Amino acid sequence: MKIAIAGAGAMGCRFGYQLRLTGHEVLLIDGWQDHIDAVRRDGLQINYNGKEVVSDLPMYAPSELDTGYEAELIILFTKAMQLDDMLKAIKPIITNKTMVLCLLNGIGHEDILALHVKQENILLGNTMWTAGMEGPGKIKLFGHGSVDLQNLHPQGEAFAKQIASVLSAADLNARYSDNVLHAIYKKACVNGTMNGLCTLLDANLAGIGATSQGDAIICTIVDEIITVAKAEGIALDRQEALANIRQTFNPDTIGLHYPSMYQDLIKNNRLTEIDYINGAISRKGKKHGIPTPYCDFLTQLIHCKEDILGAE
Amino acid sequence: MKIAIAGAGAMGCRFGYQLRLTGHEVLLIDGWQDHIDAVRRDGLQINYNGKEVVSDLPMYAPSELDTGYEAELIILFTKAMQLDDMLKAIKPIITNKTMVLCLLNGIGHEDILALHVKQENILLGNTMWTAGMEGPGKIKLFGHGSVDLQNLHPQGEAFAKQIASVLSAADLNARYSDNVLHAIYKKACVNGTMNGLCTLLDANLAGIGATSQGDAIICTIVDEIITVAKAEGIALDRQEALANIRQTFNPDTIGLHYPSMYQDLIKNNRLTEIDYINGAISRKGKKHGIPTPYCDFLTQLIHCKEDILGAE
Repeated sequence: MKIAIAGAGAMGCRFGYQLRLTGHEVLLIDGWQDHIDAVRRDGLQINYNGKEVVSDLPMYAPSELDTGYEAELIILFTKAMQLDDMLKAIKPIITNKTMVLCLLNGIGHEDILALHVKQENILLGNTMWTAGMEGPGKIKLFGHGSVDLQNLHPQGEAFAKQIASVLSAADLNARYSDNVLHAIYKKACVNGTMNGLCTLLDANLAGIGATSQGDAIICTIVDEIITVAKAEGIALDRQEALANIRQTFNPDTIGLHYPSMYQDLIKNNRLTEIDYINGAISRKGKKHGIPTPYCDFLTQLIHCKEDILGAE
Repeated sequence: MKIAIAGAGAMGCRFGYQLRLTGHEVLLIDGWQDHIDAVRRDGLQINYNGKEVVSDLPMYAPSELDTGYEAELIILFTKAMQLDDMLKAIKPIITNKTMVLCLLNGIGHEDILALHVKQENILLGNTMWTAGMEGPGKIKLFGHGSVDLQNLHPQGEAFAKQIASVLSAADLNARYSDNVLHAIYKKACVNGTMNGLCTLLDANLAGIGATSQGDAIICTIVDEIITVAKAEGIALDRQEALANIRQTFNPDTIGLHYPSMYQDLIKNNRLTEIDYINGAISRKGKKHGIPTPYCDFLTQLIHCKEDILGAE
């Protein structure tokens, strides 16, 4: 199968590497020139569960794509804010038959996908795999994960199930879901509270859990997400969503960690994905006439912090 | 006139010192023992517009107050969160005739005053004077200011005007106002936006002004304050309120400064007055059935920050 990975950071490289091993014709696409140069020069260097391996996966910048190449499947793994630009850039390799699987963090990507790909060809997914970028051309893969995926349009179901098999054959532990948006919104409840609060207040997960007002804030944000999700046809369980968040406070498990948004902005001075987490809830709320003031304010505050820190 | 200053930090000492100079019998009351000890040992040491002076003003802890002493006027200058405790502590010196002038920062103090002082004896004011505490027993007075004050009950008008004269005779530039709550709420628009935002985002006034989302946040908070003020019978002009705030962004005037809440929490690790600024808007909003989500969330976030920093 001809598979293009659009957005070949650590996660994209994981999927590309594992799919290539099972015999697929895989192409990596990314905009980071140092990364492309390193992969072309030395191959993709992977620490795969502790073992050093090298893969000669082909890698291209979007501008280098051959218009003769027609992908059967494109797996999207960009940062959320790069999705629209990536889809514009890879237009030459998207045909009427190209299926597109979106595995980005955050919510609302289906609205951007719909601008570039016909509805029957869109698959939406959620993954619990992780991967680390060690530097240009170097990734570290460890731990275990899973993929849930679903077609947005009834016609895509057979293909969605086929893709789940393809991914599972490559040890990516995928399953067809008949309600993938539920998993995506459930994850958004955690990211939509802890990412923004830890980043804004310069605290780890346990630190937020230990404040007198943290839980009240979390309840209000979760209520906004639940109300918006309901308008989108997704029924979230409030107690389950809150329990999921509260378990992150535990210092014996992940409580002492700082979430990805904190890493992006506070540690690495990079722009955040807030517009695709709380900002997406705000946009969907506006569409349905549902007020989402806590998501609105948190999105604005994170953008202020990006400006103040001069993040790029 | 027998005048007690309850809350004798830098501002209380300024008023006490200047009133004493014009012949009034002034008593300072404060709970900070090191400050009391220093004043009793060395007198109150004042740098008064560059000149070093010493005043032998008497100073007491609230617990030392002689029940035989009956104040004619009590000027309240505590931190907002200390007001209720101070009023309880000085109960022995409050008679049926004692007038109480409240010059604290923030809004909603009239609700706490009403629990301890009869309505006809309450004067509410707003001051633009400043003063600096250099250490126990040492203050620095400079610059110029003014006082606006008003009786809350029609019967108090004559006394309010008399107090304005007394203060003005002591060079405190006071005037009777027929709408002091307007001045108080106008000041709350500045404090209710810039104090919380600078503290939360670790930025000076100009820094907030330079963000892409700062002004949108400010507009939403000001709209909440205006709506609550209107329900309280106070008509604020939106453009005037916003212009007042935006002028603080100017780096050539005060833009490079950090507001008092930032000094309290970030510099000195002290609890903030947020409950008497945005928190007071939230409480009054709730009373009138007006949603104030931005004030609610900002109040909660500042309390989280206090908890995370272990402020006292």
